[in-house]
Amino acid sequence: MNAPLKSAEHANMHELPNPLEQLSALLKTELLDTEVEISAQMVSSVGLIPDVAHHLVDAGGKRLRPLLCIAAAKACGEVSRPAIKLAAAVEFIHSATLLHDDVVDASNLRRGLKTANLIWGDKASVLVGDFLFARAFNMMVATGSMRILDILAETSSIIAEGEVLQLASTNRGDIDRDTYFKVISSKTAALFSAASECGAISTGADESIVSAFKTYGQELGLAFQLADDALDYGGKTQELGKKVGDDFREGKPTLPMIIAIERAQEDEKEFWQKVLARKHNDEDLKTAITILRNRGAIDETLKVAQECAEKAKLALSILEESELKTCLINIADMVVARAN
Amino acid sequence: MNAPLKSAEHANMHELPNPLEQLSALLKTELLDTEVEISAQMVSSVGLIPDVAHHLVDAGGKRLRPLLCIAAAKACGEVSRPAIKLAAAVEFIHSATLLHDDVVDASNLRRGLKTANLIWGDKASVLVGDFLFARAFNMMVATGSMRILDILAETSSIIAEGEVLQLASTNRGDIDRDTYFKVISSKTAALFSAASECGAISTGADESIVSAFKTYGQELGLAFQLADDALDYGGKTQELGKKVGDDFREGKPTLPMIIAIERAQEDEKEFWQKVLARKHNDEDLKTAITILRNRGAIDETLKVAQECAEKAKLALSILEESELKTCLINIADMVVARAN
Repeated sequence: MNAPLKSAEHANMHELPNPLEQLSALLKTELLDTEVEISAQMVSSVGLIPDVAHHLVDAGGKRLRPLLCIAAAKACGEVSRPAIKLAAAVEFIHSATLLHDDVVDASNLRRGLKTANLIWGDKASVLVGDFLFARAFNMMVATGSMRILDILAETSSIIAEGEVLQLASTNRGDIDRDTYFKVISSKTAALFSAASECGAISTGADESIVSAFKTYGQELGLAFQLADDALDYGGKTQELGKKVGDDFREGKPTLPMIIAIERAQEDEKEFWQKVLARKHNDEDLKTAITILRNRGAIDETLKVAQECAEKAKLALSILEESELKTCLINIADMVVARAN
Repeated sequence: MNAPLKSAEHANMHELPNPLEQLSALLKTELLDTEVEISAQMVSSVGLIPDVAHHLVDAGGKRLRPLLCIAAAKACGEVSRPAIKLAAAVEFIHSATLLHDDVVDASNLRRGLKTANLIWGDKASVLVGDFLFARAFNMMVATGSMRILDILAETSSIIAEGEVLQLASTNRGDIDRDTYFKVISSKTAALFSAASECGAISTGADESIVSAFKTYGQELGLAFQLADDALDYGGKTQELGKKVGDDFREGKPTLPMIIAIERAQEDEKEFWQKVLARKHNDEDLKTAITILRNRGAIDETLKVAQECAEKAKLALSILEESELKTCLINIADMVVARAN
């Protein structure tokens, strides 16, 4: 009688509280303060700016990066006014990169809505992205901490470097794991890491704690991006929906593809060369996913993601037990579990 | 016998030393240090970044903004290491906006060379622009002055706001002088102003001197952009060459056009409505320039530019006489005289 048991397990899975929602509930007041700050900073007499910014920022993003910042501060002490500014600044940096990413990738859809570049054009997206980025620095200056400014200025350079490296890697079949990890470490993990590190710094926490949060953010960011990249090929089990295949269509060599190329037999090598050299179609995507699964590329990607999640969890062992710590640990597992 | 006299005057004009070159000669060592800093900051393991950045930054820009920064510092005291970092940072902010401007305007030519977007594509220009902007903040943090960071973060927001306002004003015949001045004050004068203000601040100068340099930069920036906008229609006397008509073609309502619309008779009103509503051709540009000259729009624009130049010069009256002060005063006249 396996079926009923499976069914029960399944029901149970759904009853498990989502650790992200739990964390948001724990930090409800601080998140609300952050939302108020975010809205206040989008105000401009130039109407196009709040139009574009609200469209993106209100579209129901998870606020993962501000949450990390606030959570780190809360775990170390008080969530001060500067920490709220910092959380909003981190979301602005993220939003600026999303606006520019969508231009670069010529994307039409984000978070289930039409992208800003589709509605207002590439020009508006580029310039409003610049505005959000500049405004982020305004907020960071308002925190009054030169150390935080230093970390976030450096992080912004690293993000841009990662984005350029990703662009330079497009449609290339010779990208190795090191390059891939440099890309995702720069474009994704660096901001996760800076958000949690700076959250801890804002409370004047011990260096050992600051370092723990830096590592937690970095490894969580890697796990998150690795799982995302597995999900873009449907993850382990998912049906192929509309959200699948973006990386493939855009010629982005992510870890699943890199592993498949490493393990490819002659005919598969030819396939990868062929699809990276020309415009792909849906048939190619189906073939690619079949090969990826046959070569264990999704499993391997998620194994690496889980290793990062374990490192993230380990970094937090320095903290005393608390509901907040449990949430952060469960989030590390959750970001990978999404793709299982 | 007017002709020989005129000829002699003309010869004399050409013999007058260029005040920008004079200033560069006075600040030779400091400018060289700035160039070294600029080159050092373009280094990245991602090869596309120095490729794009060097193409733009080495293309022989006048380094007007770094010069203002260094000149202000020199006029107030010592040009310190932080002042050099600041000068390089200001040039990076400017370069980042140029990369993004060329994408937004779909430009093919800048400083006589193919634009970066034409060579490497819009994507690379957007992302390398982001990198230069982030790197500028790295350098500003390295100056160690929270006040300077505050001014330049605010300036960066203002620049982006001005760029968005300019975009929102495109192809509109109802833009008034106030909106135009908000655009040029934001997109151009703000960085001139911040560069000279922060140069003075870097030496610990008196607030009265800091304020003088802030005003000088602001008014010089306005004069510079007004003259540029007159030059885009050939200035007072210039032959129409390749460099003329960009603003017209891009549907940017600058002061010459705004004045011409203010003073337009019925048939001219129709003309402006017509050309702002559709794609323009070279014949339209010729007609536009004829109307602009008949309505005195170029003369009036340059009169306003000269008024700004006078305000810039007046601001410097607080300084003791020096060769450097004379250069700065002559530069204010020069930026307008270009269009005469």
